[in-house]
Amino acid sequence: MQPDTSDLDGFLADRNDDGYLIDADGEIPDQRYLSGFDAPDPFVTVYADGVHLLVSSLEYGRAKRESNAETVSRYSDFDYRTKREQYEQTEAKTRVIAEFLEQQGVTSVSVPERFPLSSADGLRDLGVSVAVDTESVITQLRAVKTDEEIERIRTAQRANEAAMGRAETLIREATIESGTLVHDGEVLTSERLRREIEMELLRNDHALDETIVACGADAADPHDRGSGPLEPHQSIIIDIFPRGKESKYFADMTRTFVKGTPSETIREWYDLTHKAQRAAFDVIEAGVTGGDVHDAVCDVYEAADEPTLRSDEGTETGFIHSTGHGIGLDIHERPRLAPGGEQLEAGHIVTVEPGLYDPAVGGVRIEDFGVVTEDGFENITEYPKQLVVE
Amino acid sequence: MQPDTSDLDGFLADRNDDGYLIDADGEIPDQRYLSGFDAPDPFVTVYADGVHLLVSSLEYGRAKRESNAETVSRYSDFDYRTKREQYEQTEAKTRVIAEFLEQQGVTSVSVPERFPLSSADGLRDLGVSVAVDTESVITQLRAVKTDEEIERIRTAQRANEAAMGRAETLIREATIESGTLVHDGEVLTSERLRREIEMELLRNDHALDETIVACGADAADPHDRGSGPLEPHQSIIIDIFPRGKESKYFADMTRTFVKGTPSETIREWYDLTHKAQRAAFDVIEAGVTGGDVHDAVCDVYEAADEPTLRSDEGTETGFIHSTGHGIGLDIHERPRLAPGGEQLEAGHIVTVEPGLYDPAVGGVRIEDFGVVTEDGFENITEYPKQLVVE
Repeated sequence: MQPDTSDLDGFLADRNDDGYLIDADGEIPDQRYLSGFDAPDPFVTVYADGVHLLVSSLEYGRAKRESNAETVSRYSDFDYRTKREQYEQTEAKTRVIAEFLEQQGVTSVSVPERFPLSSADGLRDLGVSVAVDTESVITQLRAVKTDEEIERIRTAQRANEAAMGRAETLIREATIESGTLVHDGEVLTSERLRREIEMELLRNDHALDETIVACGADAADPHDRGSGPLEPHQSIIIDIFPRGKESKYFADMTRTFVKGTPSETIREWYDLTHKAQRAAFDVIEAGVTGGDVHDAVCDVYEAADEPTLRSDEGTETGFIHSTGHGIGLDIHERPRLAPGGEQLEAGHIVTVEPGLYDPAVGGVRIEDFGVVTEDGFENITEYPKQLVVE
Repeated sequence: MQPDTSDLDGFLADRNDDGYLIDADGEIPDQRYLSGFDAPDPFVTVYADGVHLLVSSLEYGRAKRESNAETVSRYSDFDYRTKREQYEQTEAKTRVIAEFLEQQGVTSVSVPERFPLSSADGLRDLGVSVAVDTESVITQLRAVKTDEEIERIRTAQRANEAAMGRAETLIREATIESGTLVHDGEVLTSERLRREIEMELLRNDHALDETIVACGADAADPHDRGSGPLEPHQSIIIDIFPRGKESKYFADMTRTFVKGTPSETIREWYDLTHKAQRAAFDVIEAGVTGGDVHDAVCDVYEAADEPTLRSDEGTETGFIHSTGHGIGLDIHERPRLAPGGEQLEAGHIVTVEPGLYDPAVGGVRIEDFGVVTEDGFENITEYPKQLVVE
C-alpha cells in the first residue's frame, strides 16, 4: 500500500530539507507506513522524491519484493566490510547511511522525535544536517485512514468481537461457587479468560499479548491486566486490542460485565459512563478538537459529582484517564481525545472510552471506536453493551 | 528481579558521568532490564546510586509496586501541566526530565545508542551533558544470565518444544495427495501449521507472531516466513522463537523436516549442517570469541565445497547468515556468533544455527541454543533431530 506523501513534500519544502529519514525496525509504525516493509531489525528509509531503503543483505530480496521502495540498497553496496575494519560497528553503519544519503542527493534531513541519537550524532559529524520533526508529520499522515486501512481495522474488530463473545459466553456459562466463578469444574481466573480470548483471536489471525481481564479492585487501576479468580457481583473489565498478524492494524474495545448482582454504585457508574460515551459520540465530527470531545465526557461526569482529572488534577478516583486516542498501525496514535487534543479530521479513527474507578468499588469502562466523518461519527463497534451477564 | 549493576557503577565512573538514562517503553530490553517495569508507553529511568523512575500518573501505582526503582516520580510532580501551557508537548516533557535529573543530582548522562534524539537535543539545550554509550553497557550486563534468567529461558524452551512437537505430529499424520500434504481432509499450509504452533504456545503462556514455516523455495530465503501448501519431498524449515507472556524471555529453535523422500542434496546438507553445529558446540567455551565459533562452522561448510559469506561476500546461496546470537529479553542480543563476534563469557546464552540455502534446492537449518560455561556448552534444547518424518 503506497502512502499518500503529498503533505510530506510540502513539509520538506517548508523546512528546506532534502529528505525525511527513518532508522527503525518494521514494528515502528512510521517506518512501517513509509517503507511498507516489515523487518525485525532496524533498517533505514529515506523519503526524497520517492521512498528509498537501505537494508542488510539478508533482507534485500524481500525488501525488493515487499516494500514500497523505488530503490533498495544494501550496506554491502557501500563497502560496509571495509568500513567495519576501520571503525566501530555503529560508526561504520552511520558512514554507510551518509553515503546512501549522498547518493540520493540528500544533505539535510528531518527525522522523527525518537530517531536514534547515535545515528543523528554520527550523521551530524559527517556534515549531514539532522533536525527533529516535532510535528510528527508521518504520524499525522497515518492518522487519516484510507478505505483500505479502515477495512483492515474493521476486520480486526470482527476478530475482537468474536473474542469478546467467547469471554462473555464463558462468564455466562460459569456458576458461582464459594465466592468465585467456576467453569467446567475449574475456577475461572483472569488468566484463563485471557488465554481463551487470545486463542480465539489467534484462530482469526489476530494477536494480543496484553489483554486486560480485571475484576474488583484490579479493575480500579486502568492499566492493571488483572489476575486471580473472577468474583461474582464485582465488575469485570475486559479490554481487548488485537492486531492483525498480517495487516498489522489494531482494533480496540472494552466491555464491563458483572456475573450476579452489581452494587447500586456500579449500576449508576455503568449508566453514567454509557451516557458520557454517547455525549462524546454526539460531539465528534470533523473540525471539533479532541479537547472538545474530552470536555463533553468530563461535563457528564462532573454534573453527576464524579471527580475527573479536569476538576482535580490529583484525584486517584473517578475519571482518571483521557477519553480516547487514534488507532491504526499503532494502538495509541493521533489524534488524542484529551485535554489539548488536536482538531479531528474526516478519516481519523478514534476510540471513545470513558470510565470510573475507585479501589473501594471497582471499575467501569465502555470503549467503542469508529471513523470521524465530515458531520459525525461512524461507529465500527457492533458488540452490544449489557452490564449484567445472566 | 534486581539487575547486577556493579559494572554500571564502574562504567559511569570511567566516563565521569553521573547517571545512565533510558527513555523507552517496557518492550525495549535495556529499559525492561534496568527498570524491571513493563509499560506500553515510553517512560524514563535513570540509574544514579540506584534506579529511579519517571512515569505518567496512570502508571504511578503499578510502577511503585512492580518496578525495581528506589523512587518513582510522576510528571505531575514537576508541574507538567504548567509547562504544557508554555511549551509544546515534547519540550514540556523534556523540561520535566531535566528537573527530575536535577533532583537526583545528575548533570551528565550516558544513554543507549537508540536514545530518542528529541530528548537528547532538548536536554543538551537545557545544559545536561548527553553522551552515547557505544559499548551498550546495559546490553552487555544483560548478556550474562543469572540462574533465574536461565530458568525462565528453559521454561520458554519447554513451551517451544511442545509447539514443535505439535507441528511435527501434524506433518507425520498428514497424507500426500495431489502433490501437497493433507491433514484431516484439508490441505496443510504454512499458515495452518503456524496457527497450530502459536495456539500450542499460547496454551503454555508463550507467544510469537512471526513463526517461520517455510517449504521448498521459501525455505531458501532465511527470513521468508513461508506461505501456501506444504509439499512432500521438499525441506520444511520450522523456526520457533516464543517469548514468555509473563517472563518476557525468549527461546529459539529450528528444525528441518521432509515428508516423503528428500533429495540426495537435502540429505547431504542436513548431515553437513548437523556436523557444522557439532563443530560449533565443540569450540564454544568461555574465552573463545563469537568469531571463532563462526569460523568453525565456515570451516566445515567450506571443506565440503559449500559457499559461505566468508569465502564469497556476494554469495546468495550456501551459508548466507551468521552462526548465532545471544537470546534473553531480546530475540537477537549479545554475543554475536559472527565475523568479529565478541569474546564469550560463562552465563551467555547463545543459539547455534548453521544452514544452507539455494532456491533450486530449498533450505536446511538446525538451531539449538544453550549456556556458555567455563569449559564448554550446556545445550538447553532437548528436541530430537531427524530429517525425515514418517
